[in-house]
Amino acid sequence: MNDGPSKPAMREALVAAAFELFLERGFEQTTVDDIVSLAGVGRRSFFRYFPAKEDVVFPDHERSLAEMTEFLDSGTGEEDPVKHACDAARLVLRMYAEQPAFSVQRYRLTRKVPGLRAYELSVVWRYEHTLAAYLRGRFAARPEGPLRADVIAAAVVAAHNHALRTWLRSGGESDWVAEVDAAMAFVTDTWSDRPADRGAARPGEEPEDEVVVLVASRKAPLWRMVQGIESALGGN
Amino acid sequence: MNDGPSKPAMREALVAAAFELFLERGFEQTTVDDIVSLAGVGRRSFFRYFPAKEDVVFPDHERSLAEMTEFLDSGTGEEDPVKHACDAARLVLRMYAEQPAFSVQRYRLTRKVPGLRAYELSVVWRYEHTLAAYLRGRFAARPEGPLRADVIAAAVVAAHNHALRTWLRSGGESDWVAEVDAAMAFVTDTWSDRPADRGAARPGEEPEDEVVVLVASRKAPLWRMVQGIESALGGN
Repeated sequence: MNDGPSKPAMREALVAAAFELFLERGFEQTTVDDIVSLAGVGRRSFFRYFPAKEDVVFPDHERSLAEMTEFLDSGTGEEDPVKHACDAARLVLRMYAEQPAFSVQRYRLTRKVPGLRAYELSVVWRYEHTLAAYLRGRFAARPEGPLRADVIAAAVVAAHNHALRTWLRSGGESDWVAEVDAAMAFVTDTWSDRPADRGAARPGEEPEDEVVVLVASRKAPLWRMVQGIESALGGN
Repeated sequence: MNDGPSKPAMREALVAAAFELFLERGFEQTTVDDIVSLAGVGRRSFFRYFPAKEDVVFPDHERSLAEMTEFLDSGTGEEDPVKHACDAARLVLRMYAEQPAFSVQRYRLTRKVPGLRAYELSVVWRYEHTLAAYLRGRFAARPEGPLRADVIAAAVVAAHNHALRTWLRSGGESDWVAEVDAAMAFVTDTWSDRPADRGAARPGEEPEDEVVVLVASRKAPLWRMVQGIESALGGN
């Protein structure tokens, strides 16, 4: 029984054919018929994998969203929620980084085609919504929990997108792990209850009950005081 | 010379007719021909005001975006950038609040029609992009300035949308000024160099050089220390 490409191979062949045509003649000028004809499969096969032409451009987001949801749900309720949300966002960047050439090609295409840009925004919105739902659960008992959850979810997504864009603009050449580390550190330093677990006792150590003393002018901006605390805590 | 509705009246008549039909028979089932026929104007008049059917649903965003840009540009470079960005976002919420019935109706429609939801996301993205561009300019000399700008712009937009949604879900009944104040305070308290100008000398007063002393366990979460500082500063 080997009368055609296997299912994953057919899906990949459709994606490859679609991109070849999108780049050659443009997204709007390419029809689903053109794609299936180049891929050598039937029209119905296309719609088995992709609800519409836009979906072939982002073939991995459904899987990635499911992976993010599963990861978020895997929390025990004891984990730092901001750090957990940041780790969930890292999964998405890893998905892009696994296929650098494809990701860079798609980035160039998406910037040129308004319809794809709109589609991408709707995908980004779903990631943000998923993160916000998790954070709302974790912040349920906190004052202004839903507001805090929505703002932090947006910040995580913006930091992720900043790292992703930086990496894409380098043509996939820059160190994506360093980009995402810097971006997520900015978010956790702002909001995490345990930024980089500074000052936390290591397993097997007696917790040190040291004290931090900060003396600052009442007129100093809050961020400078926070910087003061952070440097007193000695992390970096 | 009074041979037809004036220009703003014609635009308003088109918006009113479009909404009547969208709510009655659905967005997808309504054509531009249906709208112009109910409004009693020619087809070309429609396209003079609106590039596409989607645009009639959000007739004020172009004006609002222009207003936001103008407001951001009006900064002297001395203003607190985070507070200025928050004030720019308030302008958008005010635009919604000026027409409560229309805004609530549109909210219900937008939630039902995926095409409108996508359109709305693209509008939100333009606001975010405008805020980020302003903040990037202001943070140019700061470490990680572009990252900071992108994250804060997203946070401002998320806080704005949180306040807007809360107000829309109340059917336009809740106090939108209180909603937006709370949302923006969350953002400025997180990042502003001068949160609510606490402790700043009032004009004509000698600046007080008071000092804040915070003593905290090294293991305390950073947010708790920040809360400690805030309560020492005595604002609320």
